[in-house]
Amino acid sequence: MSVFTPITKEDLAHWLEDYAVGRLVSFEGIAEGVQNSNFFVTTTLGRYVLTLFESVPRADLPYYLHLTAHLAHLGLPVPAPVADRHNEYLGTLSDRPAALVRRLAGRWQMAPTPAHCTRIGAMLAGLHLAGQSYRRRHPNPRGVAWRNETAERVRQHLPTDEATLLAEELDWQATQDFTSLPQGVIHADLFRDNVLWDGDVIGGVIDFYFAGSDALLFDVAVTVNDWCSMPDGALDTARSTALLEAYDRERAFTAPEREMWPAILRAAALRFWLSRLDDFHLPREGEMVQVKNPDEYRDILRTRIGEAPRLPD
Amino acid sequence: MSVFTPITKEDLAHWLEDYAVGRLVSFEGIAEGVQNSNFFVTTTLGRYVLTLFESVPRADLPYYLHLTAHLAHLGLPVPAPVADRHNEYLGTLSDRPAALVRRLAGRWQMAPTPAHCTRIGAMLAGLHLAGQSYRRRHPNPRGVAWRNETAERVRQHLPTDEATLLAEELDWQATQDFTSLPQGVIHADLFRDNVLWDGDVIGGVIDFYFAGSDALLFDVAVTVNDWCSMPDGALDTARSTALLEAYDRERAFTAPEREMWPAILRAAALRFWLSRLDDFHLPREGEMVQVKNPDEYRDILRTRIGEAPRLPD
Repeated sequence: MSVFTPITKEDLAHWLEDYAVGRLVSFEGIAEGVQNSNFFVTTTLGRYVLTLFESVPRADLPYYLHLTAHLAHLGLPVPAPVADRHNEYLGTLSDRPAALVRRLAGRWQMAPTPAHCTRIGAMLAGLHLAGQSYRRRHPNPRGVAWRNETAERVRQHLPTDEATLLAEELDWQATQDFTSLPQGVIHADLFRDNVLWDGDVIGGVIDFYFAGSDALLFDVAVTVNDWCSMPDGALDTARSTALLEAYDRERAFTAPEREMWPAILRAAALRFWLSRLDDFHLPREGEMVQVKNPDEYRDILRTRIGEAPRLPD
Repeated sequence: MSVFTPITKEDLAHWLEDYAVGRLVSFEGIAEGVQNSNFFVTTTLGRYVLTLFESVPRADLPYYLHLTAHLAHLGLPVPAPVADRHNEYLGTLSDRPAALVRRLAGRWQMAPTPAHCTRIGAMLAGLHLAGQSYRRRHPNPRGVAWRNETAERVRQHLPTDEATLLAEELDWQATQDFTSLPQGVIHADLFRDNVLWDGDVIGGVIDFYFAGSDALLFDVAVTVNDWCSMPDGALDTARSTALLEAYDRERAFTAPEREMWPAILRAAALRFWLSRLDDFHLPREGEMVQVKNPDEYRDILRTRIGEAPRLPD
């Protein structure tokens, strides 16, 4: 959520007149994130987050906005979009599609304990179960087609050993079939910086703009790779066991999921190695742009290949 | 929100299976309040408040639940009801109508400063403006009919001076006509214990179960009487001016509202004197019941009769 597009106070104050959230007091750009422009917005009535969508196609946005509205309707701590006076979630500001959400309480937890991972595992399963009643459909925008295109784009920038790792992993993943696993709505980016903690409790799960329909286990793998990796990339089994047991208590893993776990952990690591390589070697211009280190996911992928982790019984 | 009806952990855990909020961890009764049974509920996914409705007719509850859903949809910090798996806000638990809401962050501020009153004034106007697009209609359940019935019930319990004050005020209020003032959805109970502060910001406005259609200015008067009174009942003009100026900036007061302000402050004081007398002299049975002191509103009424407050220009 870096800031790519600047806005003026006058434009924002005028835009907010279409909402029932009071009058503009102040706003500031949010540095974190890699995909959209985000701003903290304070009005006479409260605190909000404004998102200007930089790369998600406008036609795809209702899927995301209605998804968070659906999850909030069912009681999950996600930033429901704010409707304007015309009952629309999506507006236009600085020539970008724009949406406003209530700002949720809480702070990141970048050094999670097994207790945090227990809560994350339960929350991820809760999101998957609540997503089952969401009617709109959207393919995972970071699926196999994207993977192959991105690999093609970045491989020329890689040193030989990394290019070999990438080529071999792409070949191996092509032999894996996750389509028989339980499918549903996945967050697809439930990283530590997309969860706000209010003390020991999850106050908010944010940034659903990579969500889509895919194997639920892929989402579990994405989440474990971020929340449960040690600095060298190896799994911290205390954290991963806590996360996976908590998930399993809310939604029990199936036998095919147990079988595919090691392979899908690798697929999830590959997905983020590729997107970080893409952001690193082919960056977009922006006012405040944050680029994450791709080597972290190269190391996670390498260690996952050598590990044979199992889901808890 | 005292606790009148006990619940068991087994019943609650079973009831929650119809929701997507995870599994029950713990719950406890909430002592505060005078109308419903309320419980803090902690699940594997978060923190909620459960309300069992003790006296509001079941048929009236959709008005309240959809009102808070509407206000939350427009971005106001109110506890939106949580829908169950059948997409219903209203269920049944311990033979009572029951609803679940997300627990909002924040704490009461019982000693508000003018700065707090500025935020409250803006919020109240914001609620009034957002309520204009709410389609359902419901009369103020504490209107003139209720006032006369309640006065009849309680007057025999009053000492002579209070009985005289009550009779004279009822006669005088019967000569006042508030029906030409701007009407809309009013909260009708925006007391300090119905607002949760998250630092200096309003994290939540709760307890809409007295809401209905009435003169917006009546809501302003209820709010000023609670937030801006000194211990002897007199208005603290620093606080009332802050509240009223902030309200006026969001929704400008009309000339008829300026004229009726002293009279409607008295009507609002009378309404709470009567309900507290009713609760004090004719209490309901309950497990943890809190009764508020009626004398506070007798004193506010007496001082408002002697005051001639004006809305800020």
